[in-house]
Order: sequence, then structure tokens, then C-alpha cells
Amino acid sequence: MTLTADPGTDVPSTIPAAMRAAVLFGPGDLRVVDKPVPRPGPGEVLVKVAMCGTCGSDVRRVQQGPPSQQLDRQLTLGHEWTGTVVELGPTVDELAVGERVAIHAHHGCGRCENCLLGMYTACLNFGDSAKGHRATGITADGGFAEYTVHHASALYKLDESLTWEDAVLAMTAGTGLYGLEAAGGYVAGQSVAVIGPGPIGLMVAQACRALGADPVILIGTRAARLDLGRRLGLDTAVNARDEDPVAAVRRLTGGQGADLVIESSGAANTPQQCVEMVKRGGRILFLAYYKGPVTFDLSLAVSEDVTLFTSRGEGARSVKRALALMKQGSLRGRDLVTHHFPLEQIAEGFRVVRDREGDPMKVVFVP
Amino acid sequence: MTLTADPGTDVPSTIPAAMRAAVLFGPGDLRVVDKPVPRPGPGEVLVKVAMCGTCGSDVRRVQQGPPSQQLDRQLTLGHEWTGTVVELGPTVDELAVGERVAIHAHHGCGRCENCLLGMYTACLNFGDSAKGHRATGITADGGFAEYTVHHASALYKLDESLTWEDAVLAMTAGTGLYGLEAAGGYVAGQSVAVIGPGPIGLMVAQACRALGADPVILIGTRAARLDLGRRLGLDTAVNARDEDPVAAVRRLTGGQGADLVIESSGAANTPQQCVEMVKRGGRILFLAYYKGPVTFDLSLAVSEDVTLFTSRGEGARSVKRALALMKQGSLRGRDLVTHHFPLEQIAEGFRVVRDREGDPMKVVFVP
Amino acid sequence: MTLTADPGTDVPSTIPAAMRAAVLFGPGDLRVVDKPVPRPGPGEVLVKVAMCGTCGSDVRRVQQGPPSQQLDRQLTLGHEWTGTVVELGPTVDELAVGERVAIHAHHGCGRCENCLLGMYTACLNFGDSAKGHRATGITADGGFAEYTVHHASALYKLDESLTWEDAVLAMTAGTGLYGLEAAGGYVAGQSVAVIGPGPIGLMVAQACRALGADPVILIGTRAARLDLGRRLGLDTAVNARDEDPVAAVRRLTGGQGADLVIESSGAANTPQQCVEMVKRGGRILFLAYYKGPVTFDLSLAVSEDVTLFTSRGEGARSVKRALALMKQGSLRGRDLVTHHFPLEQIAEGFRVVRDREGDPMKVVFVP
Amino acid sequence: MTLTADPGTDVPSTIPAAMRAAVLFGPGDLRVVDKPVPRPGPGEVLVKVAMCGTCGSDVRRVQQGPPSQQLDRQLTLGHEWTGTVVELGPTVDELAVGERVAIHAHHGCGRCENCLLGMYTACLNFGDSAKGHRATGITADGGFAEYTVHHASALYKLDESLTWEDAVLAMTAGTGLYGLEAAGGYVAGQSVAVIGPGPIGLMVAQACRALGADPVILIGTRAARLDLGRRLGLDTAVNARDEDPVAAVRRLTGGQGADLVIESSGAANTPQQCVEMVKRGGRILFLAYYKGPVTFDLSLAVSEDVTLFTSRGEGARSVKRALALMKQGSLRGRDLVTHHFPLEQIAEGFRVVRDREGDPMKVVFVP
Repeated sequence: MTLTADPGTDVPSTIPAAMRAAVLFGPGDLRVVDKPVPRPGPGEVLVKVAMCGTCGSDVRRVQQGPPSQQLDRQLTLGHEWTGTVVELGPTVDELAVGERVAIHAHHGCGRCENCLLGMYTACLNFGDSAKGHRATGITADGGFAEYTVHHASALYKLDESLTWEDAVLAMTAGTGLYGLEAAGGYVAGQSVAVIGPGPIGLMVAQACRALGADPVILIGTRAARLDLGRRLGLDTAVNARDEDPVAAVRRLTGGQGADLVIESSGAANTPQQCVEMVKRGGRILFLAYYKGPVTFDLSLAVSEDVTLFTSRGEGARSVKRALALMKQGSLRGRDLVTHHFPLEQIAEGFRVVRDREGDPMKVVFVP
Repeated sequence: MTLTADPGTDVPSTIPAAMRAAVLFGPGDLRVVDKPVPRPGPGEVLVKVAMCGTCGSDVRRVQQGPPSQQLDRQLTLGHEWTGTVVELGPTVDELAVGERVAIHAHHGCGRCENCLLGMYTACLNFGDSAKGHRATGITADGGFAEYTVHHASALYKLDESLTWEDAVLAMTAGTGLYGLEAAGGYVAGQSVAVIGPGPIGLMVAQACRALGADPVILIGTRAARLDLGRRLGLDTAVNARDEDPVAAVRRLTGGQGADLVIESSGAANTPQQCVEMVKRGGRILFLAYYKGPVTFDLSLAVSEDVTLFTSRGEGARSVKRALALMKQGSLRGRDLVTHHFPLEQIAEGFRVVRDREGDPMKVVFVP
Repeated sequence: MTLTADPGTDVPSTIPAAMRAAVLFGPGDLRVVDKPVPRPGPGEVLVKVAMCGTCGSDVRRVQQGPPSQQLDRQLTLGHEWTGTVVELGPTVDELAVGERVAIHAHHGCGRCENCLLGMYTACLNFGDSAKGHRATGITADGGFAEYTVHHASALYKLDESLTWEDAVLAMTAGTGLYGLEAAGGYVAGQSVAVIGPGPIGLMVAQACRALGADPVILIGTRAARLDLGRRLGLDTAVNARDEDPVAAVRRLTGGQGADLVIESSGAANTPQQCVEMVKRGGRILFLAYYKGPVTFDLSLAVSEDVTLFTSRGEGARSVKRALALMKQGSLRGRDLVTHHFPLEQIAEGFRVVRDREGDPMKVVFVP
Repeated sequence: MTLTADPGTDVPSTIPAAMRAAVLFGPGDLRVVDKPVPRPGPGEVLVKVAMCGTCGSDVRRVQQGPPSQQLDRQLTLGHEWTGTVVELGPTVDELAVGERVAIHAHHGCGRCENCLLGMYTACLNFGDSAKGHRATGITADGGFAEYTVHHASALYKLDESLTWEDAVLAMTAGTGLYGLEAAGGYVAGQSVAVIGPGPIGLMVAQACRALGADPVILIGTRAARLDLGRRLGLDTAVNARDEDPVAAVRRLTGGQGADLVIESSGAANTPQQCVEMVKRGGRILFLAYYKGPVTFDLSLAVSEDVTLFTSRGEGARSVKRALALMKQGSLRGRDLVTHHFPLEQIAEGFRVVRDREGDPMKVVFVP
């Protein structure tokens, strides 16, 4: 492919005018349609999408229908995408046409107080595209499409040793790695318990092990997922159906509890387990959403001097950390991809995710 | 008084052999009895108690009776005490006889992992006096007595401008100031909401204002306590009986919510208020205990990138910070003392606390 | 004045087409000339300048002449300015026309790695206006003019209790307050020594005292400046001509040295003094520039576990912190302004600064 | 070996009354003599030494002779030792007789302000054994002996997969790992340059790579040492005799400089190189001592917002981190041991170190 790009002026000759994209028209109404190929504005880059992963939040988004402010413009979903740079918007020299890139989804406005302080995933102008915020596939058109535009500062050059599948999972890893940063980031020698061996949990558990945590205890209820964890090197696994996870963590940490407990399951009973299995003075990191309010013994957290961290996204350039760990082989992404679908079959792919058919871990779509 | 102390050898001639002390004999059975004056061991100091405050936890302790491990030795309660150094144990040169001192209650073992890392309030050998832990009035004999012993490293020389009442409240302030440290410590220019204008809340709210927070919003349900707050300079007060506190905080922070929300009321509905009134990317600090498990929308904390800190005690030398703020006049302690009792009337004093007779804020006992 | 602003379209009728501005034409050649009034672009604001202070770096800038990349466009200097909003560029709703504002000078590009991580004063695209960086008066036209444009996110609404002089010094304070943040930010109860009672030193020393540091030791060589410090409440002053400052700090800190040493003098012998007067395990903060390389015993810093922080500007929204401390009266700016000049007399004013005529502390110009 | 230990009462029957130990009698006068086997006090443990490494500071210590306060008691040197627990002092239950242990050398007093805050390597009672401080082989008898005593909290159980040589180097790694903690600790994805491929440099460079840094640039002047680095996986090596190291780091980091520069060579010209090769907003970590004062452009650090960290020892339980990384195979210690000597040949061993005979990396002694 010999793409030529004349930044900000003419469309490169190889870029078509129209493309296929999966657009959310209403609750449950996700359709692949023709749409114009977008053009990159100042600071932006046009990427030819190679692959886009499916997040649990995408399934909820489809069920709920498009957010009201986007009703008029029919959002293209998909925030776990990767691809090749095909055109640079004005002022962009951070990347070159032809480079493969991974992304972070949450591009902040760069001008609210949170963005100025380095917290772009907590941008106070969330959804305000006029001010520069752009959460791809969430508040702006995303990656379930042949082409998409994103801000240059949200793109990361992909090492040649990494696959598209790795790039998709680097994005997934970013949320956990940002959470680790909030929680201190220096886990070497510390004990970590991870509840929930889904994509978020398996990526952050691997990252903790890569960063020297010892032990890393993986807790789940589905044997197949714990087995995948074992194949990824997470060999201290606890099936909560077989053993009380609090007792197990105490047993595996000499009675003291884990220095860091990471909750990525979203099960309503886990916050209580977290405060019971964490070490005095320890930390809990929540990477999940719950179906409703949760109930737990907050007083225990207070009396044990425990801090509760959260992470909603891949802040602080954490995708760069993920890619570095992947490049050195200590964090594996591609092993989590269980299903590939062509983009045209997105409805079928989402059904598989929703029905958990074939125990899907990460389902990706190829335009 | 011209005390002479010959450290670690003979008892100074002015120190009697016996003293009066309030001992917990069983649930609800707190009695002032005769007890031998203790002797300071290596690293320890004997203090003639001038005053000892009452904490909500003391009331619970009396109701529950002594903890099982101390059943045999009849604990002297009281962890908010102050007084004058009268004897130095072996190796102590950090202080001198005759100096007035404030304290922190939680002296760690100095050898567990948490103590080595500077987290002495989360000592893993809590209650293990053989290993050096000593939480005065909690796991070791405390300050509802004429004399008591504490470790030299838990004592702070009291500036001559400060009263005994200030010293009692410096201890109270320590918990909040340690919590501030956990939550960043640098609140100048940030908006802070404090729920619960009890002693903990009023001290930490004052401290936030002293450290430059703007605004500091004090939220409570009792008018008299909010009035006391106003007299202490906390003039942005919200009575939650009159206005929804979440709406009030949003109104007073330009719609964004508070950078830092501090919960010191212990009311079951406040955790939900906290996650609703905190700014995106903000912090919540819990300084209270709840009657049972609490229920709130943890997902909201996750989606808003909010961190939940806790503090159970006056860690990281925070009493020193309190005393410095008191010395410069920006943190006032003595104004919170509403009731003085002689030690012999401790049962009556505790009744006043329990029955909230005369709206007691801080009740102190003088041996 | 009844300004009307129609953001981003027509020029408000009260804004003239041309203005007077102090432009640097070459080394030593600073002249007040006519220049077009600039227009605010997206995210930008046009401010009618009320006052602009002089920084030591301005004097160096005039002596050296304009930086090469700006040779063609004749830079308007001045980065310590304040004024009133007169026009909003497209998308700006953070401020309103008629509001008085203070500023931070270093607006980052918002897209380099450092900006994304919250370090906008260390922007990797420093000087690259096409990418959005704008250091007013340094790489972009500044405030020695009747009007100037700046990015909305670099402006802070000024409380009505504060004067233009306060606003100028809030900017000066910002560098020190950002340095404090780097060094921990929570100085209550800690001992601080500040070398160099110039504007930077006097502002940061006041801030440390406001934040509860005890003692705050001010070290200088000019009696008049130490006297000004005393009038600002910094009563622990050491004249380094009369007493060895290292010995003085040891004496005033019980022999241990200061928890935090702040160097804002730029004198070549002070780095050695810093490592000698800081406490074991303590911190040094450098806020000054030196005429050449400095020589000191770095091994002593290593063996004493000392960290050396720096601050080159008012990062992390530290001007907001300064304004909050000023509003509550614990940080005073206006007292530092010793000389007012009309803008037309800028050459004379700079001469006064350069020749130290009348011991100028902060010299300001009024357009 | 069937050791029996009756803690704190009788000497286990297998422990002899006397032992061989290398004692420093005067400048250059290090002799192996008979000495009583020490007994463990409260909180202490008696260890049968298996191996003790030589540090550059040991060589200086021998040349200078014993510190004055220890002149009367003839110090046993050696702070990089490892061995097997043979007797527990009173109150020790953290370890068991027969367990193999690694150590940290600096046991703090546990009662000064720095120790309370978790900074035991910066203990303010350094050398005061009455108050509990014990820097083994530095201020208290160390490990160039058959037996030695240390505090239980300074010992780490050694995984069975690790050798004595690993344990010696875990201690060496601790200084760098503590420095990393000071400098943030979360280096995944960051660029790191390490100057000085001696034991300290090679251990911290390996650790950075293990923690996900990319690239890790090793800079030295001796080809053999850079080759050892390559064999340890540090394949981005720069020989400063062949290429300007500043230019090399710029080249290898896309022109931006390294996020973190670690100086462990002690060469006088390296501080200047550090400030020139570090990224704007980056960090420098000094792990070395210099022969005299150093000269460098400190203003450059200020204008580039660079922080200078230091580490003098293995604080914050960093040896535990080292052991975890060793256990998972990403940090290799034993490969650095180039010379083994029996303890009786300590003079010869020290001569080899001093004369750099055979390019010794880490020289160990076996009692």
C-alpha cells in the first residue's frame, strides 16, 4: 500500500469518500450502513481501522440506545480500535502516514481544570466536542467502521512485534494500569488479589505479575476463565465456588490479607469481600460497575486504614505502559481474543457477547 | 513544683506510689479506683495527667466492656490526654521533666511492615504490647488517671501559648489531618465539604480553612453545632434539614461539586451524598464509623474517577501539624470543650455524653 | 463601562483597532509603539491589561534581545499581567466579559506527553504556537500593552477583595506554590528555611507560613528586604552577613536542620548552604537561576537522603492556590509593589530595576 | 542440621561460644580474629552467616579505619550478608530457626521522626544503638563473621529458588529500588538511562527493565561491564568512550531525553551529563558518591523542571521487592558475583577489589 497524504489539504487518493460503519439508531438497533469517511481537523489523524474490540459497556450502550445529545447524528460505536494512519490533520507531526497505532479512547478537552492537572479521563467537558473533548465511540464516532478520526495525542505507535489483537487489549489494559498508578503503581513484592477474570481482570492481573507482585491471586467463578488465567501464567487461582475467597486470600498471604485487592467482576457481593480480604493499611481498586447500589462494611475500611481507588479509563498515558509490557512479552493480549467477526456481522457478534455463547472473552470485529 | 527525676532508676520523690484511675471492670462498669502509679520502661515517659477528653469510641468501649485480652488486667481508659512529664525512662532524652506534652494515642510496634513503612496507626501488631505496640487507653492503660506512661515518640512538646484543652483537641484534629495527608494534603484553593460538625468535623474543617481551602462548606443537622462552626469562622454552613446538602454543595461550587468531601457524621445516608456531591475526579475522606453496613452507588464513584480515603487515627505525626496550626491561631481547640468534670465524676460525665445532655461537644476530665 | 461582546464575530465597539505596546526590537531596544489590538481565537480571551509586573527574566530578555524565532515579529514582553475580560473567543464560556482576571503565563499545548500528564510548564512543544503552546510575554505577545490575548484556561477570576497588585504577585507566588506541590505541599508543622527575600522568596515564605510551617526562617543579605519580610509576618529572619545561615538554621531547628529549604536567591554559594542546612531525609526546592554552573557537595545530599526539587513556573493551577490564600488574608501581594510606572516609561522603569535604584522589589507598569 | 533453639534462654547446643570475625583495628588493619558469638536481644535474631559481599564503602572504611565512637570495641565489618537463622531473641516470632534470610542493613531506631514517617535509612538516631538503631557492619557488628545478630524486622525469608549470591545482591538492589520508589516507582513504558554498570547500576538497570521501562540505556566506559550488562539482557548499551552519552540518549529517545536518568558511577562529570540527557520535566536519581564537590548547570534542571532524587540505602522494605523480582527471574543477582574467598583471606580479597584485579564486580566472602 502506497498511501500518500498531503496533510490538511486534499484527500489522499486512496481514501474513499464513503465507508461502512456500525451506527446505533435506537435501543437495540445497531446497523452497518454507509457513511462519509471523516476528515481530520487540526491535531487530528485519520486511521484506517484494522480491528475493533467489544467492551461490556458497548453492549449496554446498544441496549439503551444512543445518548440523547447524539440522537440527531447517529453515533458510530466502538472505542477499542486499532489501525493504520492514513492522513494527518493540520499541525500533526507526532505520527506518520503508514504507522500502525493503538489508542486511548478518552481524549480530554485539554482546558478544564482536570485536564490541566493531568486527569483527562475525568474531563469536566466530557462530551463537549466544541471544546475539544472526544471519547471515541462514546461521545464521538468510533471504530466500528472502516475509517475513524482521533486526536494525535491519543494514538500510540505500535511496535512491529505486536498484533492488532494486542493493540485492542492494550486499550483494555490501560484502565487497570491507570488504576494501578492511582494506587501507587509500584507493586513489586506486594501481594495482589484480582477478583473477576474477564478481560479487565486478566490484563491487570498479568500486569501486576509483570511488575513483580507476589503472589497474584486470581479469583473467579468460571473454571474456563481461571484456566485461561493459568495459561497466561496466573497460577494462583481461586474458584469462589469451591473456596471462600476471603479465606483463600488470608491463607495465601500468611493471614495478613492482600496489599492490593482489585475488583473487576461487578458482582454485588465483592465489595464486602474486598474489605475483608485486604491487608490492614492496604488498598482496594475498583475497575467494575455494579447493577445497583452496593452494600458493605465501610467502617471496616475506616478502622483498617484502607483506601478505595477507582479507574474509569486509560488515563495518564497508561496504554503506553501496556504496550511496553507487551513488547517485552510479560503482558499478553492476543490470547484473550476468542472471537473474530467481520464488521458486517456486528449484530451477530453482539448477540454472542450478550448470550455468552462459547464463553466469549474478547470479541473483535474486522471492517 | 520542683520535680527531680533520675531517669530509669529511683522514683522521683514527688511521685506517689498509688493514684486514682478510671478502670473498666465490665460492660457499663467504669469505676474510679486506686491503682499503682506505673513506671516508664526504656523509651517511655511518665506523665502527670492534666486533662483527658472523651471520644465517642470511649462510650462504646464502656458499653461493651473490656476487650477479652485485657479482662484480667482491668484497663484504664482514656486516649485523649495531656499533661506534664514527670519521669523519663531509660534512653529518653527527647523530652525533659517538667515539659507539658500533647500526644498521639497509637504508638506502633516499630517493627511490623506497616510501621516500617510509616503507617503506625495500621500497626500489624496492634495490641501486642510485648512487641512494643501501645494504643494508650485502648490496648494499654490510658489517661483517665492521675498518671500514665506512654512512649516518648508519641509525645509532643506543647507550646506555652496552648492550653490543656487545646492539647486534647490537637489529638482529635490529628485523625483529620492524617486523613488530609492521605488525600493529598495540599488543599489551598480547593473546595471542601465537611459533613458532621462534631469534634472531628469541626477540627478538620478548621484545618482545611487554615490550609487555604475555599470554600469550606460545613454540613450538619443541629443548628447549635453549625453556629459553633460559624463562631470558629466556618461561615459557609448548610443545615441538611433545610436544604438538600448535595444541591447545596453543587450550588456553592459552581455546579462542579467539591474537590474534597469529608464525612465525619457516621450517618448511614451520607456515603451516597458524598459520591453525589464530590467533583468528577475528586476525593472523599471518611473519618466516621457507621452502625452497620452502608449502601451507596459505588459505580458512580468509579465512573467519576473518585477516590475514597479513610483515616482511623492520628498517623504520620499529624498532631505536630495540629499544634503548629493552633500555635499560629488558625486552628482553635479550646472552644470545643463544653464540659469539665473532675475524674471522680467520670460516670456522670459519660452519662452526659451518652444522653447528649446540654449538647456536649467535647467533655473533658481533670484528675 | 458597558462592554458588549459578541464572541468570535464582530469586535466589540469599545475595543479600538490599535493600541500601545512595549516591543523588543533588539538587545536593549525596548520601545513603546502602536500595534493592532489582537483578536481572540478559539478558546482564547481578549483582556484589557490593567497592570503588568516586571520579572528578573524580563530584564535578561531585554538585554539579550528577542529570541531568534521571534525576530521577525517583534515580541511584546510582559508575563505578569492582570486585567479585565473584554472579548471571548469562540467556545469560551468559562469567563464573562467584564470579569477581572489573574493569569498563569505558561499555557501548554495540551497534547504533548507532559501536558497530558499535567505538567504544562514543562510542555514539550514550548514555543510552538501552531500546536497551541502560548507562554505570554515569553513566546507569545504579552502584557506590556493595552490589550493582550491569552487562553481561557490560563485565566482566574479575581476576587473583588483583591487589587491589581495582588493579581500581579499571585503570578509570582505561583512558581513557589507549584514548587511546594512538587515537594509535597503539606508543610503544616514542618520547618522551612527560605534563602533570598526577593519577590519569589517573600511570596513562598508567606505561603509556607500560611500553610502552617513552623518555623519559617527567612535568610537574606539586605536588611531592608528582611525588614519587609518582618512586616509581612516573617519574623524569624537571618541576615547572612551577620550570622552563618547554616548555623542559624541548625540553631532554630533544634540542631536537625530544616525539613524544607527553599533557594530563591540565585547566589552561587547557596546550593552548598542548602545541603548543609537541610534535615536528614529533607527536601530542597530551587526556585532560582544561577549565573553559571554551581559547585556543591552532592554526595552529602545522597548520604543524607535529600531530594532536590525545582520549579520553573506556575504549574498545576497554583495561581488558584495563591488567590485563595490572598483572599483569606494569609498571603499578601500588594505590599511588595514598590514602584508604579506608566507603560510609556517602561525604559525608565527597567533602568530602575537594573540599577536597583531605591531597592525595587516589584516594579509594575500601567498601560 | 538439627538446630534447636530455646528463644532467649539457653544457647542452642550447636552454637559455639566463639567464632572467627574480620575486625577493623585501624586504618588498613583488617584482621580475622576470634570473638565471642553474640546473643540476640529482644526483637533480634542470631544468624549463621553463609556469605557476605563487599561494597565500595567497605574499602573506604578499611582505608579510613574505624569510626571514632567504635574505636574501643573493634567493629566487625560487612553489611551485605545472608545466612540461616539459628536463634531467636525474646518476642521474635516473625521467623523460625532454620530459615534462610536476606537482609537490609539499616535498621532504624523506630522512634525518631524519620523512622515514624517510614524513612528508616534516614534515621535521626543513626549510630545510637541504645535507642535501637543498628546499621549492621557500619555502626554495629556485621557479617564478615561466622555469626551475627540483626533485628528481626531487617530480615527477609529467602525463597528456596534463590542462592546466597542472589541474597547478597538483593541487598545491593535494594538501594536502587528504594531510589525508584522515591522517583515514582512506576517506570513501565518510560525511558531510563543508567550511568555506571557496577553492581548498583546493573541491579537497578535490570530492575527498571523488569518493571517495564523501555528503553533501558546502560552507559559505561568498561567494555567488559557493558558486556555483562548485555548478557543480563540490557542490550541497549553505550560506551561513553566511543560516543557522547548525552547525544546517545537523545538519539535513543527520539530527541526528548530520558524520563529517568540514574547515576551510579560516581564520576565527577556525570551530574552535568544527567541534566543534559534527562527529558524536560524528568527525573534524575543519584545512587553514587563523588570524590569531592561536583559542578554542574543546576539552572538547567530548574528551567527544565527536573527533580533530583537520591537514595543512600535499602529503605521502605525494598529488599522484599528485589527478592520478588529475583524469584520470578527478571532480576538476576548471582551472575554479578565474580570472586569467592574464604573469610580468612579477607585481606587478599580486599586487595583484589582495591586493585580491580580481574575486573571484580562483586566479591564475596564465605566464613
